[in-house]
Amino acid sequence: MIANDRRIRVALLGHGTVGAEVARLLDEQAGELAARVGAPLELAGIAVRRPDKHPDLPRHLVTADAAGLVDSDVDVVVELIGGIEPVRGWLLSALQKGKSVVTANKALLAEHSAELAEAADAAGADLYFEAAVAGAIPLLRPLRESLAGDRITRVMGIVNGTTNYILSAMDATGAGYAETLDEASRLGYAEADPTADVDGYDAASKAAILASLAFHTRVTAADVHREGIAGVSASDIVAAKVLGRTVKLLAICERVTDADGGESVSARVHPVMIPRGHQLAGVNGAFNAVYVEADAAGELMFYGQGAGGAPTASAVLGDLVAVARNRVLGGRGPRESAHAALPIRSMGQTPTRYHISLDVADRAGVLAQVAQVFAVHDVSIAAVRQRDRHSTASLVIVTHSAPDAALRATVDEISRLDVVHEVVSVMRVEGED
Amino acid sequence: MIANDRRIRVALLGHGTVGAEVARLLDEQAGELAARVGAPLELAGIAVRRPDKHPDLPRHLVTADAAGLVDSDVDVVVELIGGIEPVRGWLLSALQKGKSVVTANKALLAEHSAELAEAADAAGADLYFEAAVAGAIPLLRPLRESLAGDRITRVMGIVNGTTNYILSAMDATGAGYAETLDEASRLGYAEADPTADVDGYDAASKAAILASLAFHTRVTAADVHREGIAGVSASDIVAAKVLGRTVKLLAICERVTDADGGESVSARVHPVMIPRGHQLAGVNGAFNAVYVEADAAGELMFYGQGAGGAPTASAVLGDLVAVARNRVLGGRGPRESAHAALPIRSMGQTPTRYHISLDVADRAGVLAQVAQVFAVHDVSIAAVRQRDRHSTASLVIVTHSAPDAALRATVDEISRLDVVHEVVSVMRVEGED
Repeated sequence: MIANDRRIRVALLGHGTVGAEVARLLDEQAGELAARVGAPLELAGIAVRRPDKHPDLPRHLVTADAAGLVDSDVDVVVELIGGIEPVRGWLLSALQKGKSVVTANKALLAEHSAELAEAADAAGADLYFEAAVAGAIPLLRPLRESLAGDRITRVMGIVNGTTNYILSAMDATGAGYAETLDEASRLGYAEADPTADVDGYDAASKAAILASLAFHTRVTAADVHREGIAGVSASDIVAAKVLGRTVKLLAICERVTDADGGESVSARVHPVMIPRGHQLAGVNGAFNAVYVEADAAGELMFYGQGAGGAPTASAVLGDLVAVARNRVLGGRGPRESAHAALPIRSMGQTPTRYHISLDVADRAGVLAQVAQVFAVHDVSIAAVRQRDRHSTASLVIVTHSAPDAALRATVDEISRLDVVHEVVSVMRVEGED
Repeated sequence: MIANDRRIRVALLGHGTVGAEVARLLDEQAGELAARVGAPLELAGIAVRRPDKHPDLPRHLVTADAAGLVDSDVDVVVELIGGIEPVRGWLLSALQKGKSVVTANKALLAEHSAELAEAADAAGADLYFEAAVAGAIPLLRPLRESLAGDRITRVMGIVNGTTNYILSAMDATGAGYAETLDEASRLGYAEADPTADVDGYDAASKAAILASLAFHTRVTAADVHREGIAGVSASDIVAAKVLGRTVKLLAICERVTDADGGESVSARVHPVMIPRGHQLAGVNGAFNAVYVEADAAGELMFYGQGAGGAPTASAVLGDLVAVARNRVLGGRGPRESAHAALPIRSMGQTPTRYHISLDVADRAGVLAQVAQVFAVHDVSIAAVRQRDRHSTASLVIVTHSAPDAALRATVDEISRLDVVHEVVSVMRVEGED
């Protein structure tokens, strides 16, 4: 069925941690990969910014001319450089010429996936990006393919290893945020400039990709409400512990149904308190885990290493085998599915639940006064816990679900009450009834 | 690109819990499915044994003639009847005629997947079976596709909900096996004839399928060492608890490397003690979870509902969309990959670790005598715990890894020692260093 001289020529853009691992596996697993694909994979070239910095690579493969390599006689472009420009132009050009693309570039996909998907569709090429979210965890393929006959209602996960490492460490040691970040940088768990991680940009890109796939709706990073972990204090961690909870930075993508039956998509990244018994609570350190809820399938969870050279390379190679097979056999992978085109819900209108921990005056009538503020904003209280502490008392409130804007307004107003000495901790809660 | 009048005609064999759910979703999600596939899916017929028992189904769709339905003008056969014959003949006939097959029939696949895969390959048809293992959990697609560029070393999981329910309940209540099985039957968690579940046949079929995919080697149910849970006693559960462990029935598929570098495959199903902190320990009731270890990807875990009409139907529909898309676009899914053809390792030669709990005479020299038996069989002891109890003492031993046959022989010989009053519990351990 397959001509014996057929080879699939692969252009590799980037030779960092992941790229080097991909090149190594292409070589080491050559026989295995050829058996899977039905034809040998041939590394046609490796584009790097500074060839002189890679003296160990075969001279005939290395080039600084990524555009030229993409334009040459290759079948598949594997992009592991990252960033938007100039990568966007190279990949568009590849797709327009009918070459398939495998990329781990979450920032690019979260901004420009519509444009890339349209180019791929127009030319009948494949665009695969399993490695862009949750590293080695096979997550996008299940969302795009295994659950293709189901209706996904929610995707919620720990998708950034750096912030999960920091929050796990704060929980374990009781140390504050700044101190723990310093330690994480020293140990190599945080980048020299940790902004993309700690401010939630990385997780927001991933949330956009997940929401797009789960809800067949184009969701970009700009549609994702984003709060990082810089505001998480040691007091928040303590407040969570007291209630048998822990703090995680979650990407949450939900299908929200209005009272009138209309549907919209909420995508957000923010710190959350979850019960210690929750499956996501046990995901520590640099691991990732993603919970998926679907009408027929029910609850699913996917767990594994979210970053690192070898794990990410594993996901890239899985994609590479798929697109190469499609070229050999003449098939095509799943196309962009954006037909639902649901509206994006603003954060203010998204239903959430708050945990609020207050230091209040220790006298009668305080709870009544606080509760009145909730009532005014039409926010229902699920649980209250009060404790005396000399002249002040501690008041912990967990709300029922209400629009986030109403919850924020409630907290604002409560913080201005005379009887409230301090708002010790405010955080959203998930994963409990 | 797609002719507008193209339809994919689907034959549904079986209308039980899963079949009815598939039929319902085909109808309810028709528009969605057509968008994913690129052409409408049309239910061409439903084969049931006794059409008169299904008065609610449209008359023009129902037939007792499954062979005739398979032979008629259909593109895809979805088989949800189960059992080997006559289903095997129908599916072979379908594949030979180039029709794609989606099946949840683990028993059939565990015996005859080679024959079915060869027929599919010869005719260029697809054979998909995600629902055959771990119900709704997208597990086979990741193994076959996402990890296609990686080297899997181990697959270990809870793949039978009935036995997991019974073991979870025994752990929670302290009740014995027979009593808990009765209760499970009363609550509908165990079948009237629970043999296939409690004796491990169901899990062994799944282990055969998982091992075949993970190691590119044909593994049948007969190759899988199988022990059920009928021998798990309340004493075993107590012994596990004392050591901070819990008992699970696991399917374990391993790539074993000999001293001389040769590789073989071990596939087995038996009760195991695992630490309570292990991710699989927290999987309770009817849930399934599967751990996968691969060279590049590292550790992965997949969790979700392993059975039930809707969850299983979700997996069937995911497969149906894939094979229907392949027909519309002219591609093909992954073929059987059996090129590694590794030898199967016998259980006796498979390295395992034992937990052994003994009641022994309370006098000096007993441990020395017991330890001597281990030494004779070349089995190394990892940990010993001794406790006095009046005239007898309790001795708990956990071994290092050794060939299972040597471990069994050790236990046999120890049980015959005069100083050993009773072998209270013997069980393999997994998941710890």
